[in-house]
Amino acid sequence: MGKVITGGTMSLDGYIAGPGDSGFDLLFQWYGSGDVEIPSASPDVPPFRVSAASAELIKREYADMGALVVGRHLYDLTNAWGGRHPLDVTTVVLTHQRPADRPDDENFVFVTDGIEAAVAKAKELAGDRDVAVNGGQMARQCLEAGLLDEVGVELVPVVLGAGTPLFADLGIAPVQFDGPTTVVQGTGVTHLRYRVKR
Amino acid sequence: MGKVITGGTMSLDGYIAGPGDSGFDLLFQWYGSGDVEIPSASPDVPPFRVSAASAELIKREYADMGALVVGRHLYDLTNAWGGRHPLDVTTVVLTHQRPADRPDDENFVFVTDGIEAAVAKAKELAGDRDVAVNGGQMARQCLEAGLLDEVGVELVPVVLGAGTPLFADLGIAPVQFDGPTTVVQGTGVTHLRYRVKR
Repeated sequence: MGKVITGGTMSLDGYIAGPGDSGFDLLFQWYGSGDVEIPSASPDVPPFRVSAASAELIKREYADMGALVVGRHLYDLTNAWGGRHPLDVTTVVLTHQRPADRPDDENFVFVTDGIEAAVAKAKELAGDRDVAVNGGQMARQCLEAGLLDEVGVELVPVVLGAGTPLFADLGIAPVQFDGPTTVVQGTGVTHLRYRVKR
Repeated sequence: MGKVITGGTMSLDGYIAGPGDSGFDLLFQWYGSGDVEIPSASPDVPPFRVSAASAELIKREYADMGALVVGRHLYDLTNAWGGRHPLDVTTVVLTHQRPADRPDDENFVFVTDGIEAAVAKAKELAGDRDVAVNGGQMARQCLEAGLLDEVGVELVPVVLGAGTPLFADLGIAPVQFDGPTTVVQGTGVTHLRYRVKR
């Protein structure tokens, strides 16, 4: 049975986005901080190039990933990543209403009845592999619902001063974690992995 | 010439204090997470006991420390640490008005003309050793004034959900750092050190 994981790139003062959705250039600088390519299955998203240390961790995690859960907002914002998610797995989209012209296929599956159902569907698709949950709101709902096993933080050396915090508006704070179980220092980023306490 | 450093214990979502100054029990759990004693020079503050990895780093940093800068708020809140700061160095207190009954001595020195003057006084007292700046407001003023060389974050595995961010209300965000130059994994805490970019 795989894990349910989430993660995000975070500033040194705890923000996954700066004020007014600024700061992404600074947050994601590490995507171009090395020379090992991480391929992308999306025609719209270029591969990124990171340090060897970052690449080793990321490739291992990607290999274990069996399905994704995202929110409709991210799906629309990225224009469905041009047809397939960069991670090259089936992506479960949690939405209030499924798109009219879009049947479920190996690229995208739509779920309308809440986060539990979306994660259950993704687990079914992932089999023994992991399910990744993407986007701050989805991650928060998962943590609140007790569905989350692991949190990854890619900590970058910039102070944004304001913005959207990790797990913003969490209804069950404070929440304690075990770990970090993994600490990997890349170029311009520190990769930290934590387990949700049961 | 020593460095001017600051630091603080921070939650995984970027807060150095929880909502309404809550959460300190969770933030400072790591002060009792091991069996190596870090002595305290204050009669009011007990020594803390941390893991060997944390202790090695902290003792090295304490040995390099020549003076402290704190704000009047912290000085009053702690009742002057019972007479001497736990770190066993002279503490420069930045204040609007010096306490009437308190001449400068080897424990406390009062400065009324701003953060630059307070840091300059502390540097004079520290000689070749480092100056530590304590309290979020003092740290922010130092960073804004270009006086800070290094930031230390003791990252702990708890999500507080809200509270006081590191460098709250920073007037010069975004600010980029180099590093981390040091990553030490203790029990219940990850020690990270960053250099201010010049």
